[in-house]
Amino acid sequence: MPAKLGIIAGEGELPARVIEACRSSGRDFFVVAIEGHADPKIVAGTPHMWSRFGAADTAFAKLREVAAEEIVLAGAVRRPSLRNLRPDLRTAKFFGRLAMSAMGDDGLLSAVVREFENAGFRVVGADQILESMVTAARLYGKYAPDSAAAADIEIGLDVARALGRLDVGQAVVVQQGVVLGVEAIEGTDALLARCKDLKRDGPGGVLVKLKKPGQERRVDLPTVGPHTVVAAAAAGIRGLALEAGGSLILDPLTVVARADEAGLFVLGLEVPE
Amino acid sequence: MPAKLGIIAGEGELPARVIEACRSSGRDFFVVAIEGHADPKIVAGTPHMWSRFGAADTAFAKLREVAAEEIVLAGAVRRPSLRNLRPDLRTAKFFGRLAMSAMGDDGLLSAVVREFENAGFRVVGADQILESMVTAARLYGKYAPDSAAAADIEIGLDVARALGRLDVGQAVVVQQGVVLGVEAIEGTDALLARCKDLKRDGPGGVLVKLKKPGQERRVDLPTVGPHTVVAAAAAGIRGLALEAGGSLILDPLTVVARADEAGLFVLGLEVPE
Repeated sequence: MPAKLGIIAGEGELPARVIEACRSSGRDFFVVAIEGHADPKIVAGTPHMWSRFGAADTAFAKLREVAAEEIVLAGAVRRPSLRNLRPDLRTAKFFGRLAMSAMGDDGLLSAVVREFENAGFRVVGADQILESMVTAARLYGKYAPDSAAAADIEIGLDVARALGRLDVGQAVVVQQGVVLGVEAIEGTDALLARCKDLKRDGPGGVLVKLKKPGQERRVDLPTVGPHTVVAAAAAGIRGLALEAGGSLILDPLTVVARADEAGLFVLGLEVPE
Repeated sequence: MPAKLGIIAGEGELPARVIEACRSSGRDFFVVAIEGHADPKIVAGTPHMWSRFGAADTAFAKLREVAAEEIVLAGAVRRPSLRNLRPDLRTAKFFGRLAMSAMGDDGLLSAVVREFENAGFRVVGADQILESMVTAARLYGKYAPDSAAAADIEIGLDVARALGRLDVGQAVVVQQGVVLGVEAIEGTDALLARCKDLKRDGPGGVLVKLKKPGQERRVDLPTVGPHTVVAAAAAGIRGLALEAGGSLILDPLTVVARADEAGLFVLGLEVPE
């Protein structure tokens, strides 16, 4: 019987997938839903509490009380501004130890992982719970990149790795050799929406999404789902290239169905560390 | 008497400033206005022709006919899609020699410079014509960055240089240690507009704008003007950090006036090559 799982629920669909996985395997869990980030519809009907990002004391106490032993951080949590943080004592001490202003998101999230571990919890990655959704090194669906798309993917890999090394973002859109857009904190949906207006005529671009080199992989793995495929198709994108072993495809069957309908390729690629 | 100047006019205010500089020094000039890019109001009343990006033959012939000896490329020209190019013979040969799909904007623009030189023109940079507008290594206006803004500038320099090395873009916005946005082909105005929605509470961010390391400096030097300051202020930005000797401040007196009104700093910074 696996240990009880504490699910720290941020944005997007990932928390829902983790909850489903617990339910279908009969694993006990408890959800800490982050205010302003987690979707209330997802946590309704689960054992849960709501917590501010800055209220770690209460959340840690509750996770101990319900005897959660493992923790998974599921779904993005945008870093709060210093003014909005209103930290309790644990959170204040935590930020006191960090030079927060000198860290990117990955630096901050790695520190959050250490904080859980120092408090005696084991932190696991969402990919360890959603093993069937980890991107494999293969072509999904029936479309494949042509040579022009392959050239765009090469450029996208270079740019995404350079950005990731600087802890900026995980995604980039390249069309006909031109970098149309680069993701920082706006997220992939906003990147795709803007590329719709930036694309030029002719063969469409590619979305490349990788984890950051050296990224703490237990937090914020790059994730796509059916809605990513729909948004990409609407933006004139011809295909998605994702890091094999380093990203998640939520609901892969629906992703393939949507991609096949829209004529997009979905490619899992080995990326050297 | 300086040689007659051929002004290849793209987007924005830069062509207008170059035209003004010619008029105020009594220098002869001829404008080749790029369709879909140059502002018709700017070229009205000047000796000029309109040209498609793909119609280099006609433009070269006209520049020879009017005896232009020096050429300046003023204002951005977004790279056309292959489908829209409809190249004439010279343009087709030009693109035939390039692996265009493997080049970023700087690579393409450097090749355009060589094409003019091979045809016997001298190509000068806008900074050689607008010497008084080249950013100096100093503080403009009455505001200065505090230590938090200085830390954001440091991050912005790292990110902008990495992006520039990959020929992606020239500008980045950083707030409280977080990269809010990174410029690709959307341009600085669009970057600023989006950062308005991405900013967090508390001290505002900084806009860092640099030329790309190794960039052909006769094309596409980073440029800011009064409207950049107004857009930055509207986006909650606290200041601009620009590359000294490697960027242009159009209409510096108005830039300083707007920055002082809005409480923004404008800093020219030496950036190691």
